[in-house]
Amino acid sequence: MRISELSRASGVPIPTIKYYLREGLLPGGERTARNQANYDDRHLRRVHLVRVLVEVGGLSLEAVRSVLDALDRSDVPLHETLAAAHTALRRETPVRDDALPLARSETDAWLETLGWNLAGANPARDDLAAALLALRQLGWRVGPEVFDRYARHADALADAELAYVAEQEEPMAAVEATVIGTVVFERALIALRRLAQEHHSRTRFGAR
Amino acid sequence: MRISELSRASGVPIPTIKYYLREGLLPGGERTARNQANYDDRHLRRVHLVRVLVEVGGLSLEAVRSVLDALDRSDVPLHETLAAAHTALRRETPVRDDALPLARSETDAWLETLGWNLAGANPARDDLAAALLALRQLGWRVGPEVFDRYARHADALADAELAYVAEQEEPMAAVEATVIGTVVFERALIALRRLAQEHHSRTRFGAR
Repeated sequence: MRISELSRASGVPIPTIKYYLREGLLPGGERTARNQANYDDRHLRRVHLVRVLVEVGGLSLEAVRSVLDALDRSDVPLHETLAAAHTALRRETPVRDDALPLARSETDAWLETLGWNLAGANPARDDLAAALLALRQLGWRVGPEVFDRYARHADALADAELAYVAEQEEPMAAVEATVIGTVVFERALIALRRLAQEHHSRTRFGAR
Repeated sequence: MRISELSRASGVPIPTIKYYLREGLLPGGERTARNQANYDDRHLRRVHLVRVLVEVGGLSLEAVRSVLDALDRSDVPLHETLAAAHTALRRETPVRDDALPLARSETDAWLETLGWNLAGANPARDDLAAALLALRQLGWRVGPEVFDRYARHADALADAELAYVAEQEEPMAAVEATVIGTVVFERALIALRRLAQEHHSRTRFGAR
């Protein structure tokens, strides 16, 4: 298809597609004339993926590039690609606090007790420590066990998600499924948690 | 305590505290001299809350102000305060897409089947519809039922969270607990989900 058709099929304006091309977020089409190129379904898929990462995931173009770089490497084991994608997908601003290393050693020790198969480098470890630190600064006298219930539910969700990923026949589809799972289902999970809070809040505190 | 002590106790620099005072995010202390005021534990708590909303929640100062306004209104039922806080806590950029209203009518109908006690206005409804739309744009032929599992886990978490809120004796503590729950435990949940994904990914795809 031509760029105008790619634009129509994806709902992404032509100037934005040209921008993705210039920035290397989208591979060039097959050249058919000096000013014309042909795009196929892989381009359409990639345009959609970039758009979801930017609009749903709220990622910067630099972060999108890191995710795509991770996706495009076929020479590494799947779990490493996923780890690289996760690192690239991190969008929280790291918390700077002198007390963070101590909180981190506590949350790391608690993660050990869960028996999860983890490498040391996941940036989510710092996010978890920052959450514990924030609770304490707000006067909650709690340890990492306050997250026990969240760990159980996260474990059940991730188990089902990776089962789905493992069913995919091509590795590319598997990795894409994980990136989508992280970005899109994360947003859905947050939305549903807030709706469920509304439900329980209205039910407990008397709105009909 | 004096402003210097408030700064030491909270770990927030004096200029930042002065900025919070100027912006009305922190009520003034009790004036003891022309250039001096006394602050108490409520100020300390509020400084921590603002800091957590900004640093952990990633909220803009304007959003922080809306959350605090919701917290400071004591004349409305608790569930309305929570609803106002939720609206203020929303930080996702709304998705603009012509196909959103159709997706929204589907996710709204699906929410009905869950039997949750919801008002119509929660902005999380749009986030959920945007997630469904994103999946479809990526070629997934799915309906809102793809979120069934997420709804079950969100429901279980929110039930426990609101049970905790209901145990609080002062309404102020209850509302604060919910705001903290939303911001801090949301971050913890996201971090734990990513760690659980790493665990299942490494376990399924062979890293030790």
